[in-house]
Amino acid sequence: MNILVTSAGRRVKVIEYFKDELSKINGRVITTDCDENAPAIYFADGYEIVPRIDDPDYINIILDICEKYEIKALLSLIDPELELLANNKPIFDERGIELILSHATYIDISFDKYETYEYFSNKDIQSVPTYRDLAQVRSKLQESELSYPLVVKPAKGSASLGLFIVENENELLEAYHKFEGQIIQPFYKDKEFGIDVYIDMLSGELVDMFIKEKIRMRAGETDKSISIHNEKIETLIKKMIQETEFVGPIDVDCFEYEGKYYISEINPRFGGGYPHAYELGCNFMEYIVENLKGNKNKPYEGFKYKDNYVMMKYDHIKLIKE
Amino acid sequence: MNILVTSAGRRVKVIEYFKDELSKINGRVITTDCDENAPAIYFADGYEIVPRIDDPDYINIILDICEKYEIKALLSLIDPELELLANNKPIFDERGIELILSHATYIDISFDKYETYEYFSNKDIQSVPTYRDLAQVRSKLQESELSYPLVVKPAKGSASLGLFIVENENELLEAYHKFEGQIIQPFYKDKEFGIDVYIDMLSGELVDMFIKEKIRMRAGETDKSISIHNEKIETLIKKMIQETEFVGPIDVDCFEYEGKYYISEINPRFGGGYPHAYELGCNFMEYIVENLKGNKNKPYEGFKYKDNYVMMKYDHIKLIKE
Repeated sequence: MNILVTSAGRRVKVIEYFKDELSKINGRVITTDCDENAPAIYFADGYEIVPRIDDPDYINIILDICEKYEIKALLSLIDPELELLANNKPIFDERGIELILSHATYIDISFDKYETYEYFSNKDIQSVPTYRDLAQVRSKLQESELSYPLVVKPAKGSASLGLFIVENENELLEAYHKFEGQIIQPFYKDKEFGIDVYIDMLSGELVDMFIKEKIRMRAGETDKSISIHNEKIETLIKKMIQETEFVGPIDVDCFEYEGKYYISEINPRFGGGYPHAYELGCNFMEYIVENLKGNKNKPYEGFKYKDNYVMMKYDHIKLIKE
Repeated sequence: MNILVTSAGRRVKVIEYFKDELSKINGRVITTDCDENAPAIYFADGYEIVPRIDDPDYINIILDICEKYEIKALLSLIDPELELLANNKPIFDERGIELILSHATYIDISFDKYETYEYFSNKDIQSVPTYRDLAQVRSKLQESELSYPLVVKPAKGSASLGLFIVENENELLEAYHKFEGQIIQPFYKDKEFGIDVYIDMLSGELVDMFIKEKIRMRAGETDKSISIHNEKIETLIKKMIQETEFVGPIDVDCFEYEGKYYISEINPRFGGGYPHAYELGCNFMEYIVENLKGNKNKPYEGFKYKDNYVMMKYDHIKLIKE
């Protein structure tokens, strides 16, 4: 069984974990990237340099690679490619290639923070209140249902691009009009958590979750986290999985504010902090392989990792001759 | 012979290289950091958690650590500590502990971009023209000796904090008045280079240099570089070393603009990209050990590394129980 990981980039660990898991069954992991200087491709059993995902030939080239390497299933590690793959699912289905990916509906919901909030609040899943209507925010400010500071950011943004923390009406207006499609949220971030979740691709049931608190650093580094057991977050995630149809590996961001927990974002792919989960025994690669073999994984039975383990990231290097 | 590396942070590779080199002579590398989540400390032969460098007891605590571990020499990996160490040199001298560090005069010059420029232009070393007087910039703009875009940034800044690329008078004024001590430079960055240089601590002569071009990436990642041989840069660095008294390992930033080369900055310590140099044979740890043994290193004889090798950084992880 061979798996293709597209847009592998710098995600060396994810590739190594797949390689380890697949080697147990004589399978291989193959990678692609548009950049020959993407370190992760060199850690796979094979790699191909491909055009950028906006190239009209991109999907055909990926299909050719799938044929060449007898690929059983594929997944991508970057957001912009998820929608593209999901929209082309029929073409992959036709050729018997599985996408390790949620349905396009859920990818669309997860990429728009306003839609995420709307969907979740309809299902009574606690998530960070999100507004796109300035008049509504003003009236809530007047009625003291909202207060400064507020967060203004793009509905479809990533990282902190276009994000402003505003302290008054003037700043709010400036930030809101800076870009189109800005949303407004209360600043709900006493603590920040990342939760790695695996949902069975056959049964749709929760299989495993790993909760880590992100440790905020002086210099703005966010690459340290600590494993924790938190039953309130566990309950929130369980409810979310019941009320949605995400499948495979997903990454959930969650804030703690005044003792309550709010989902802030879903990334329907392996999160950047996943190595923390894996190193403490949450082996999603094993669950993927089981699913691809046609077997359901055992449903979730509670935290199976040790808490209070800190993960620190540091730079490793790889040299290649150009 | 034991060496202490302070503020080790995430610089795991530098610690590993010292450990390798010192193990050949039964020496040890010891590390400190104020943060127990600094991954590099765990790769040394021993480590101590210390207060922040602004703690009034900091130097005394470092001296105690030097005594405890029979430290022969020490170096720091972060800028703010260099000045502190250099200013306390007599105290270290008294105890027979060597600082692997340039003289305080040169550290001061290198931390102020205006002073760097002034010093270099007096010595006829080509560096990026730097102004702090707005009237002077305006008159040069009028006489077409300068043109937009211009770079406005703090004289004593690091990374891109407070840096603005300005396209017109309004933007120039706003950026210049945003912070105190802003300097103004032409935008001279067709290509960007980092040069790792070792200057003998005994003879003051150039021992080795490694030139890498920084590869600019789509997503703003600067963690890829390619080794190159460039005789113009080599000549510029040789002249700079002759005209200054930096010693030990330093890191020089240099821009190419319209075929000419300009020094933009000196970091009088191991640069973040040093692993590229080491992995291609420029072993500064060996030079340091030779110097500490009382031996001069062989003077520079030209490029001894292979060109066209790309270094890519990627994340490795370290888990610790809290």
